[in-house]
Amino acid sequence: MPWGQVPVLYINGEPLPQTVAICRYLAELYSLKPSTAWRCARADAVAEAVSDITNRAATVRRATDPGVKKVLRAEFLETRLPEFLTQLEEKLNEGQFLCGEQVCWVDIYLATMLEVIGAICRVDDPSAGFPRTAALVSRVRSIPEIAAWIARRPPSIVGEDPPATGAAAEGK
Amino acid sequence: MPWGQVPVLYINGEPLPQTVAICRYLAELYSLKPSTAWRCARADAVAEAVSDITNRAATVRRATDPGVKKVLRAEFLETRLPEFLTQLEEKLNEGQFLCGEQVCWVDIYLATMLEVIGAICRVDDPSAGFPRTAALVSRVRSIPEIAAWIARRPPSIVGEDPPATGAAAEGK
Repeated sequence: MPWGQVPVLYINGEPLPQTVAICRYLAELYSLKPSTAWRCARADAVAEAVSDITNRAATVRRATDPGVKKVLRAEFLETRLPEFLTQLEEKLNEGQFLCGEQVCWVDIYLATMLEVIGAICRVDDPSAGFPRTAALVSRVRSIPEIAAWIARRPPSIVGEDPPATGAAAEGK
Repeated sequence: MPWGQVPVLYINGEPLPQTVAICRYLAELYSLKPSTAWRCARADAVAEAVSDITNRAATVRRATDPGVKKVLRAEFLETRLPEFLTQLEEKLNEGQFLCGEQVCWVDIYLATMLEVIGAICRVDDPSAGFPRTAALVSRVRSIPEIAAWIARRPPSIVGEDPPATGAAAEGK
Protein backbone atom coordinates (compact mmCIF):
# COMPACT_ATOMS: atom_id res chain seq x y z
CA MET A 1 0.00 0.00 0.00
CA PRO A 2 1.78 3.16 -1.20
CA TRP A 3 1.29 5.29 1.96
CA GLY A 4 0.20 2.42 4.22
CA GLN A 5 -3.44 3.47 3.87
CA VAL A 6 -6.61 2.84 1.92
CA PRO A 7 -8.15 3.87 -0.42
CA VAL A 8 -5.88 2.97 -3.35
CA LEU A 9 -7.04 3.10 -6.97
CA TYR A 10 -5.23 0.85 -9.45
CA ILE A 11 -4.94 2.07 -13.04
CA ASN A 12 -3.26 -0.40 -15.40
CA GLY A 13 -1.71 -2.07 -12.35
CA GLU A 14 -0.22 1.18 -11.04
CA PRO A 15 -1.41 2.32 -7.59
CA LEU A 16 -2.82 5.77 -6.91
CA PRO A 17 -3.21 6.38 -3.16
CA GLN A 18 -4.86 9.25 -1.23
CA THR A 19 -8.57 10.05 -1.31
CA VAL A 20 -8.43 13.51 -2.85
CA ALA A 21 -5.76 12.58 -5.42
CA ILE A 22 -8.08 9.78 -6.56
CA CYS A 23 -11.13 12.08 -6.70
CA ARG A 24 -9.19 14.64 -8.67
CA TYR A 25 -7.89 12.10 -11.17
CA LEU A 26 -11.38 10.69 -11.72
CA ALA A 27 -12.69 14.25 -12.09
CA GLU A 28 -10.17 14.79 -14.88
CA LEU A 29 -11.20 11.54 -16.56
CA TYR A 30 -14.96 12.07 -16.25
CA SER A 31 -15.19 15.83 -16.80
CA LEU A 32 -16.16 16.66 -13.23
CA LYS A 33 -13.80 19.64 -12.93
CA PRO A 34 -15.14 23.22 -12.74
CA SER A 35 -14.92 25.08 -16.02
CA THR A 36 -12.24 27.73 -15.31
CA ALA A 37 -8.94 27.85 -13.37
CA TRP A 38 -10.47 30.31 -10.89
CA ARG A 39 -13.57 28.16 -10.32
CA CYS A 40 -11.29 25.15 -9.88
CA ALA A 41 -9.29 27.12 -7.31
CA ARG A 42 -12.39 28.16 -5.36
CA ALA A 43 -13.67 24.59 -5.38
CA ASP A 44 -10.21 23.36 -4.32
CA ALA A 45 -10.36 25.68 -1.32
CA VAL A 46 -13.68 24.13 -0.28
CA ALA A 47 -12.25 20.63 -0.84
CA GLU A 48 -9.30 21.47 1.41
CA ALA A 49 -11.62 22.74 4.15
CA VAL A 50 -13.63 19.51 3.79
CA SER A 51 -10.42 17.49 4.19
CA ASP A 52 -9.51 19.55 7.26
CA ILE A 53 -12.83 18.91 8.99
CA THR A 54 -12.74 15.23 8.02
CA ASN A 55 -9.26 14.97 9.54
CA ARG A 56 -10.61 16.48 12.74
CA ALA A 57 -13.35 13.84 12.75
CA ALA A 58 -10.69 11.18 12.15
CA THR A 59 -8.99 12.31 15.37
CA VAL A 60 -12.23 11.47 17.18
CA ARG A 61 -12.28 8.06 15.48
CA ARG A 62 -8.65 7.31 16.39
CA ALA A 63 -9.07 8.11 20.10
CA THR A 64 -9.00 4.85 22.04
CA ASP A 65 -9.61 6.05 25.60
CA PRO A 66 -13.44 6.25 25.98
CA GLY A 67 -13.24 9.41 28.14
CA VAL A 68 -10.96 11.21 25.70
CA LYS A 69 -13.12 10.08 22.79
CA LYS A 70 -16.22 11.50 24.45
CA VAL A 71 -14.57 14.88 25.03
CA LEU A 72 -13.17 15.04 21.50
CA ARG A 73 -16.49 14.01 19.98
CA ALA A 74 -18.37 16.68 21.93
CA GLU A 75 -15.83 19.36 21.00
CA PHE A 76 -16.04 18.35 17.36
CA LEU A 77 -19.84 18.29 17.22
CA GLU A 78 -20.40 21.41 19.32
CA THR A 79 -17.63 23.64 17.93
CA ARG A 80 -15.61 22.46 14.91
CA LEU A 81 -18.39 21.07 12.75
CA PRO A 82 -20.86 23.96 13.26
CA GLU A 83 -18.03 26.45 12.54
CA PHE A 84 -17.24 24.64 9.30
CA LEU A 85 -20.89 24.38 8.24
CA THR A 86 -21.56 28.05 9.08
CA GLN A 87 -18.68 29.10 6.83
CA LEU A 88 -19.78 26.67 4.13
CA GLU A 89 -23.35 28.03 4.12
CA GLU A 90 -21.98 31.49 3.24
CA LYS A 91 -20.36 30.02 0.14
CA LEU A 92 -23.50 28.24 -1.08
CA ASN A 93 -25.61 31.09 -2.39
CA GLU A 94 -24.99 31.01 -6.12
CA GLY A 95 -26.62 28.25 -8.11
CA GLN A 96 -27.45 24.67 -7.44
CA PHE A 97 -23.95 23.35 -6.88
CA LEU A 98 -20.68 24.82 -5.58
CA CYS A 99 -19.68 26.17 -8.99
CA GLY A 100 -23.13 26.84 -10.45
CA GLU A 101 -25.59 24.60 -12.27
CA GLN A 102 -23.08 21.85 -13.09
CA VAL A 103 -22.04 19.31 -10.45
CA CYS A 104 -18.27 19.12 -9.87
CA TRP A 105 -16.17 16.59 -7.99
CA VAL A 106 -16.02 18.79 -4.88
CA ASP A 107 -19.83 18.64 -4.52
CA ILE A 108 -19.59 14.85 -4.50
CA TYR A 109 -16.57 14.87 -2.16
CA LEU A 110 -18.37 17.19 0.27
CA ALA A 111 -21.56 15.09 0.30
CA THR A 112 -19.56 11.89 0.81
CA MET A 113 -17.33 13.26 3.59
CA LEU A 114 -20.36 14.62 5.46
CA GLU A 115 -21.74 11.09 5.36
CA VAL A 116 -18.39 9.75 6.66
CA ILE A 117 -18.38 12.37 9.44
CA GLY A 118 -21.94 11.36 10.37
CA ALA A 119 -20.88 7.72 10.57
CA ILE A 120 -17.79 8.50 12.67
CA CYS A 121 -19.70 10.71 15.11
CA ARG A 122 -22.90 8.59 15.11
CA VAL A 123 -24.98 11.53 13.87
CA ASP A 124 -27.77 10.83 11.36
CA ASP A 125 -27.50 14.08 9.41
CA PRO A 126 -24.51 16.35 10.12
CA SER A 127 -25.97 19.06 7.86
CA ALA A 128 -29.22 19.36 9.86
CA GLY A 129 -29.80 23.05 10.63
CA PHE A 130 -27.69 24.14 7.64
CA PRO A 131 -30.28 24.33 4.86
CA ARG A 132 -28.05 25.17 1.88
CA THR A 133 -25.60 22.41 2.74
CA ALA A 134 -28.43 19.95 3.31
CA ALA A 135 -29.95 20.92 -0.07
CA LEU A 136 -26.61 20.47 -1.84
CA VAL A 137 -26.09 17.05 -0.27
CA SER A 138 -29.61 16.06 -1.29
CA ARG A 139 -29.02 17.24 -4.89
CA VAL A 140 -25.82 15.20 -5.09
CA ARG A 141 -27.51 12.11 -3.70
CA SER A 142 -30.38 12.55 -6.21
CA ILE A 143 -28.14 12.34 -9.29
CA PRO A 144 -29.50 9.14 -10.88
CA GLU A 145 -26.18 7.25 -11.05
CA ILE A 146 -25.33 8.22 -7.45
CA ALA A 147 -28.83 7.38 -6.18
CA ALA A 148 -28.53 3.98 -7.87
CA TRP A 149 -25.14 3.36 -6.24
CA ILE A 150 -26.43 4.37 -2.80
CA ALA A 151 -29.30 1.90 -3.23
CA ARG A 152 -27.04 -1.05 -4.05
CA ARG A 153 -23.74 -0.38 -2.25
CA PRO A 154 -22.55 -2.68 0.56
CA PRO A 155 -22.83 -1.48 4.18
CA SER A 156 -20.01 0.84 5.28
CA ILE A 157 -17.64 0.01 8.13
CA VAL A 158 -16.56 3.65 8.55
CA GLY A 159 -18.64 4.19 11.67
CA GLU A 160 -17.19 1.17 13.46
CA ASP A 161 -14.49 1.70 16.03
CA PRO A 162 -11.01 0.97 14.68
CA PRO A 163 -8.88 -1.64 16.43
CA ALA A 164 -6.93 -0.05 19.28
CA THR A 165 -3.59 -0.71 17.57
CA GLY A 166 -2.31 -1.57 14.11
CA ALA A 167 -2.52 -0.09 10.65
CA ALA A 168 -6.28 0.32 10.56
CA ALA A 169 -6.08 2.72 13.53
CA GLU A 170 -4.28 5.12 11.19
CA GLY A 171 -6.88 5.03 8.43
CA LYS A 172 -9.12 7.96 7.77
CA MET B 1 -10.98 35.66 6.15
CA PRO B 2 -12.88 33.04 4.12
CA TRP B 3 -12.25 30.03 6.40
CA GLY B 4 -11.01 32.02 9.42
CA GLN B 5 -7.39 31.18 8.54
CA VAL B 6 -4.32 32.42 6.74
CA PRO B 7 -2.94 32.21 4.10
CA VAL B 8 -5.34 33.98 1.75
CA LEU B 9 -4.36 35.03 -1.79
CA TYR B 10 -6.29 37.93 -3.29
CA ILE B 11 -6.78 37.93 -7.08
CA ASN B 12 -8.56 41.02 -8.43
CA GLY B 13 -9.92 41.61 -4.93
CA GLU B 14 -11.37 38.10 -4.66
CA PRO B 15 -10.02 35.92 -1.83
CA LEU B 16 -8.61 32.44 -2.36
CA PRO B 17 -8.02 30.67 0.97
CA GLN B 18 -6.30 27.34 1.78
CA THR B 19 -2.60 26.65 1.25
CA VAL B 20 -2.86 23.87 -1.31
CA ALA B 21 -5.65 25.53 -3.30
CA ILE B 22 -3.37 28.59 -3.59
CA CYS B 23 -0.36 26.47 -4.63
CA ARG B 24 -2.42 24.66 -7.21
CA TYR B 25 -3.82 27.86 -8.68
CA LEU B 26 -0.36 29.40 -8.94
CA ALA B 27 0.91 26.16 -10.50
CA GLU B 28 -1.76 26.53 -13.17
CA LEU B 29 -0.78 30.16 -13.79
CA TYR B 30 2.98 29.57 -13.84
CA SER B 31 3.15 26.18 -15.60
CA LEU B 32 4.29 24.26 -12.54
CA LYS B 33 1.93 21.32 -13.08
CA PRO B 34 3.25 17.89 -14.10
CA SER B 35 2.84 17.17 -17.81
CA THR B 36 0.19 14.41 -17.84
CA ALA B 37 -3.01 13.65 -15.89
CA TRP B 38 -1.38 10.55 -14.41
CA ARG B 39 1.76 12.42 -13.31
CA CYS B 40 -0.47 15.10 -11.82
CA ALA B 41 -2.35 12.39 -9.94
CA ARG B 42 0.84 10.81 -8.58
CA ALA B 43 2.16 14.22 -7.51
CA ASP B 44 -1.25 15.01 -5.94
CA ALA B 45 -0.95 11.84 -3.86
CA VAL B 46 2.44 13.02 -2.54
CA ALA B 47 1.01 16.50 -1.88
CA GLU B 48 -1.82 14.96 0.13
CA ALA B 49 0.63 12.90 2.19
CA VAL B 50 2.64 16.10 2.79
CA SER B 51 -0.54 17.84 3.98
CA ASP B 52 -1.31 14.90 6.27
CA ILE B 53 2.11 14.98 7.94
CA THR B 54 2.00 18.78 8.22
CA ASN B 55 -1.40 18.51 9.90
CA ARG B 56 0.12 16.07 12.39
CA ALA B 57 2.86 18.60 13.11
CA ALA B 58 0.20 21.28 13.52
CA THR B 59 -1.35 19.16 16.28
CA VAL B 60 2.00 19.42 18.11
CA ARG B 61 2.01 23.18 17.59
CA ARG B 62 -1.57 23.59 18.88
CA ALA B 63 -0.99 21.64 22.10
CA THR B 64 -0.92 24.12 24.98
CA ASP B 65 -0.14 21.85 27.93
CA PRO B 66 3.68 21.53 28.04
CA GLY B 67 3.59 17.87 29.09
CA VAL B 68 1.16 16.92 26.32
CA LYS B 69 3.18 18.95 23.80
CA LYS B 70 6.35 17.08 24.76
CA VAL B 71 4.69 13.68 24.32
CA LEU B 72 3.11 14.67 20.98
CA ARG B 73 6.38 16.15 19.72
CA ALA B 74 8.33 13.01 20.62
CA GLU B 75 5.71 10.75 19.02
CA PHE B 76 5.76 12.88 15.88
CA LEU B 77 9.56 13.01 15.57
CA GLU B 78 10.19 9.38 16.51
CA THR B 79 7.34 7.69 14.63
CA ARG B 80 5.17 9.76 12.27
CA LEU B 81 7.85 11.80 10.51
CA PRO B 82 10.32 8.92 9.95
CA GLU B 83 7.43 6.77 8.62
CA PHE B 84 6.49 9.50 6.17
CA LEU B 85 10.09 10.11 5.06
CA THR B 86 10.77 6.39 4.66
CA GLN B 87 7.77 6.07 2.33
CA LEU B 88 8.75 9.25 0.50
CA GLU B 89 12.31 8.01 -0.12
CA GLU B 90 10.86 5.00 -1.99
CA LYS B 91 9.10 7.37 -4.39
CA LEU B 92 12.18 9.45 -5.15
CA ASN B 93 14.16 7.20 -7.41
CA GLU B 94 13.34 8.46 -10.88
CA GLY B 95 14.90 11.71 -11.97
CA GLN B 96 15.81 14.90 -10.21
CA PHE B 97 12.36 15.95 -9.08
CA LEU B 98 9.13 14.13 -8.15
CA CYS B 99 7.95 13.91 -11.76
CA GLY B 100 11.33 13.77 -13.53
CA GLU B 101 13.69 16.50 -14.66
CA GLN B 102 11.18 19.34 -14.43
CA VAL B 103 10.30 20.89 -11.06
CA CYS B 104 6.56 20.86 -10.25
CA TRP B 105 4.57 22.65 -7.56
CA VAL B 106 4.57 19.57 -5.31
CA ASP B 107 8.41 19.63 -5.12
CA ILE B 108 8.19 23.21 -3.87
CA TYR B 109 5.29 22.42 -1.52
CA LEU B 110 7.20 19.46 -0.05
CA ALA B 111 10.41 21.46 0.49
CA THR B 112 8.46 24.31 2.11
CA MET B 113 6.38 22.12 4.40
CA LEU B 114 9.48 20.25 5.60
CA GLU B 115 10.88 23.64 6.57
CA VAL B 116 7.63 24.46 8.38
CA ILE B 117 7.73 21.09 10.18
CA GLY B 118 11.35 21.78 11.19
CA ALA B 119 10.34 25.17 12.61
CA ILE B 120 7.36 23.73 14.50
CA CYS B 121 9.38 20.87 15.99
CA ARG B 122 12.60 22.88 16.52
CA VAL B 123 14.58 20.54 14.29
CA ASP B 124 17.21 22.01 11.99
CA ASP B 125 16.83 19.57 9.13
CA PRO B 126 13.88 17.16 9.24
CA SER B 127 15.18 15.33 6.14
CA ALA B 128 18.53 14.42 7.78
CA GLY B 129 19.13 10.69 7.28
CA PHE B 130 16.85 10.60 4.21
CA PRO B 131 19.29 11.34 1.39
CA ARG B 132 16.90 11.48 -1.59
CA THR B 133 14.53 13.78 0.24
CA ALA B 134 17.40 15.97 1.42
CA ALA B 135 18.74 16.14 -2.17
CA LEU B 136 15.31 17.09 -3.52
CA VAL B 137 14.89 19.84 -0.92
CA SER B 138 18.35 21.13 -1.75
CA ARG B 139 17.58 21.16 -5.50
CA VAL B 140 14.38 23.13 -4.88
CA ARG B 141 16.16 25.62 -2.66
CA SER B 142 18.89 26.04 -5.33
CA ILE B 143 16.49 27.20 -8.05
CA PRO B 144 17.79 30.75 -8.60
CA GLU B 145 14.49 32.58 -7.99
CA ILE B 146 13.81 30.50 -4.85
CA ALA B 147 17.39 30.93 -3.55
CA ALA B 148 17.03 34.70 -4.05
CA TRP B 149 13.72 34.73 -2.13
CA ILE B 150 15.17 32.66 0.73
CA ALA B 151 18.04 35.18 0.97
CA ARG B 152 15.76 38.21 1.27
CA ARG B 153 12.55 36.95 2.93
CA PRO B 154 11.54 38.23 6.38
CA PRO B 155 12.01 35.95 9.40
CA SER B 156 9.23 33.37 9.85
CA ILE B 157 7.04 33.23 12.95
CA VAL B 158 5.94 29.63 12.23
CA GLY B 159 8.17 28.14 14.92
CA GLU B 160 6.86 30.41 17.65
CA ASP B 161 4.28 29.04 20.03
CA PRO B 162 0.77 30.17 19.18
CA PRO B 163 -1.24 32.06 21.77
CA ALA B 164 -3.06 29.64 24.06
CA THR B 165 -6.49 30.81 22.85
CA GLY B 166 -7.98 32.74 19.97
CA ALA B 167 -8.02 32.48 16.21
CA ALA B 168 -4.23 32.20 15.73
CA ALA B 169 -4.24 28.97 17.75
CA GLU B 170 -6.22 27.42 14.89
CA GLY B 171 -3.79 28.40 12.12
CA LYS B 172 -1.57 25.85 10.48
